Amino acid sequence: MRTVIIGSGAAGLTTASTIREYNKDMEILVVTKEKDIAYSPCAIPYVIEGTIKSFDDIIMHTPEYYKKEKNIEVLTETTATDIKDNKVEINGEELIDFDYLVLATGAEPFIPPIEGTSLKGVFKVRNIEDGRKILEYMKNANKVAVIGAGAIGLEMAYAFKKRGLDTLVVEMAPQVLPRFLDPDMAEIVKNYLEKEGIKFILSKPLEKIIGDEKVEGICVSGEVYDVDMVILATGVRPNIELAKKAGCKIGKYAIEVDDRMRTSIKNIYAVGDCVEVIDMITGEKTLSPFGSTAVRQGKVAGKNIAGLDERFNPVLNTAVSKIGDLEVGGVGLTALSANLKRIPIAIGKIKALSRARYYPGGKDLYVKLIAKDNLIVGGQIVGFERVAERIDALSIAITKKTTVKELSNMEFCYAPPVSMVKEPLALAAEKILKSSN
Amino acid sequence: MRTVIIGSGAAGLTTASTIREYNKDMEILVVTKEKDIAYSPCAIPYVIEGTIKSFDDIIMHTPEYYKKEKNIEVLTETTATDIKDNKVEINGEELIDFDYLVLATGAEPFIPPIEGTSLKGVFKVRNIEDGRKILEYMKNANKVAVIGAGAIGLEMAYAFKKRGLDTLVVEMAPQVLPRFLDPDMAEIVKNYLEKEGIKFILSKPLEKIIGDEKVEGICVSGEVYDVDMVILATGVRPNIELAKKAGCKIGKYAIEVDDRMRTSIKNIYAVGDCVEVIDMITGEKTLSPFGSTAVRQGKVAGKNIAGLDERFNPVLNTAVSKIGDLEVGGVGLTALSANLKRIPIAIGKIKALSRARYYPGGKDLYVKLIAKDNLIVGGQIVGFERVAERIDALSIAITKKTTVKELSNMEFCYAPPVSMVKEPLALAAEKILKSSN
Repeated sequence: MRTVIIGSGAAGLTTASTIREYNKDMEILVVTKEKDIAYSPCAIPYVIEGTIKSFDDIIMHTPEYYKKEKNIEVLTETTATDIKDNKVEINGEELIDFDYLVLATGAEPFIPPIEGTSLKGVFKVRNIEDGRKILEYMKNANKVAVIGAGAIGLEMAYAFKKRGLDTLVVEMAPQVLPRFLDPDMAEIVKNYLEKEGIKFILSKPLEKIIGDEKVEGICVSGEVYDVDMVILATGVRPNIELAKKAGCKIGKYAIEVDDRMRTSIKNIYAVGDCVEVIDMITGEKTLSPFGSTAVRQGKVAGKNIAGLDERFNPVLNTAVSKIGDLEVGGVGLTALSANLKRIPIAIGKIKALSRARYYPGGKDLYVKLIAKDNLIVGGQIVGFERVAERIDALSIAITKKTTVKELSNMEFCYAPPVSMVKEPLALAAEKILKSSN
Repeated sequence: MRTVIIGSGAAGLTTASTIREYNKDMEILVVTKEKDIAYSPCAIPYVIEGTIKSFDDIIMHTPEYYKKEKNIEVLTETTATDIKDNKVEINGEELIDFDYLVLATGAEPFIPPIEGTSLKGVFKVRNIEDGRKILEYMKNANKVAVIGAGAIGLEMAYAFKKRGLDTLVVEMAPQVLPRFLDPDMAEIVKNYLEKEGIKFILSKPLEKIIGDEKVEGICVSGEVYDVDMVILATGVRPNIELAKKAGCKIGKYAIEVDDRMRTSIKNIYAVGDCVEVIDMITGEKTLSPFGSTAVRQGKVAGKNIAGLDERFNPVLNTAVSKIGDLEVGGVGLTALSANLKRIPIAIGKIKALSRARYYPGGKDLYVKLIAKDNLIVGGQIVGFERVAERIDALSIAITKKTTVKELSNMEFCYAPPVSMVKEPLALAAEKILKSSN
């Protein structure tokens, strides 16, 4: 029996490792266009900013490791070009039989359909190669424009600023982090970054990138800004071409899968950024392009291929980003999204502290909770410490259908160096209770 | 209508503030033996170690603040001596009528019944006065023995060591932190503190304190150790004398209350360290002498007195302590306690990291989960960052009856500076699943 996996990101490699964990005999072959495997693309901004010393540091394993330790074959710099009759076509020629196929083809950065995106000095931020090129080019750059104020965009902007470049962020939406924060919470993040010296243009799309051979400026709303480097952080689009060739059903946004990560075609699975998932709160289809989602899906696909019965649950798109000293997290429904979908919600928002008031080093902690029908359905937290695990705590609370009242009375731990005696999550829940009385 | 509250700790003052929040007319009188009010006794070790500059810093509010801002009268250095016929006797003379009475009499440090506990240089750690005396006495001390290796004992030991004193901890139990850690997790804490230079004697009780007028040494198992200062951190005992005088029913450990914090006597409530509560896992009576519990009980009592219907739930004794750079947390059932009670459990234990492997500054994070009938019922975490909120996440998970499998598949956020792509809580849950297959 042979499983072929297309893609060597977190989803593909987790699927491979999980199959091996439960099935010692399966032949496992991973095919990838990439040269480097087993690294976290989320780490790229931290190499650019210099916190992580080198791109080599973020590569966790080599193909040799997978061969030797797990008996998993990884073919790098190899392209799967077609799929038919239980065979994968490699580099347009060789055909490889499979019993199971896993599409872990990921997503590609979206390149806006404007002039100048292929000039020298324009970069996307997707793989280590992009990172290495950016690091090289910025040596001779002074002014950079980052297009897109999502997590990667802001992390990159902070990195450039820290490395001494004039940094301008251009975002079409009227706020930063529109995918996981409401405008009021996003404002806190923007204010922090403005204090760090980063400039913002919001509510305006990039019109074109100017230059002969290399970048000389950008044009936004008719205004020209001199820059010598442009980073496109304008989101990603699922890679679904191969799935289409295989005849897999494509949903609203990406490859359609069931809760075992099976596509519409027998014995073909799909995992990671190339599939669509279900939003736990709205029940609607959505994307979940996160490393943590990829790993969880890889586990589910791997176990099912190995003969176990494992299911992938609807998602809350639990996410966190570290931008400079700021930690920003979100989970579940935002007010922004609820309003668009006309979902009636209640909101509780507070400003608290990360430690007891008198304990040195405590920092502002902003918490916003969203409730629907008396259940907690979303949360956003911005602060300088202890944000990520609070987001995780909310993820558990939402998944387990915790009421606002239950959260307000929940038992939280306390010690002056690490928390307030009244936990901010409980205080925010109490705020909802009071507003609805 | 008048409510009299005996005690100005977190439980008493929260009750007072909560009543006022929902009832503008109630006359509220707080009677306390203490001189200073509205401070966190948990902060004392951090003043001793010098992280917090002065005891004045940890006092949040004065009696004047309560009078002016909340119309709450606080009588300090005043003792309630008796209770009868809906009257409180003050300082053995004056009688004050009440409509509601709240006993928030707290707990007293347990003084072991041995020789020498009243020598000069022997201290308890309960209130600011104790703290001020310790700070004064340690100026002329070189060697200190801390009796008791609970959270306060270890926090104090670290404080003394940091201030340059030779520090010896003596604990009767065979491990440190016996109330909320299992021996294997406690060993990590002890090893850390030994590296910091603190000495330990475990499994042996203090026999006597030696000295003529002031401390000159201690005797443990027949051996004499020279010390010039002794800290008794041997736990607390609920103050129930006044409750007894009032005729309130006393339970196994402390004042018995229902889930509205009402004692057996009409219109007399009790909150904080002087009451007993129900353990959520075992259903048995227990104590919960934590500031966070006191605040939650004060809220419940206050709301009920103000005419609302609020209930206090059984507890998990969710706790965290910061000892030097180490954060130590526990929630729910320990294996130690399960074994004593012959409760069959499953255990998942892992060593992980607090950040992505390649991200600088990541530290070891030890997680131990306890499951019973496939439900998560306890957890212990030891690490150098991001412990407290994980304990809170587990508290939510346990309260909401999360299965081991659900936790292993739970959606957690990820970013390299703040977490691993596979959350340690999920990994520990997976370990349980694998061990039970």
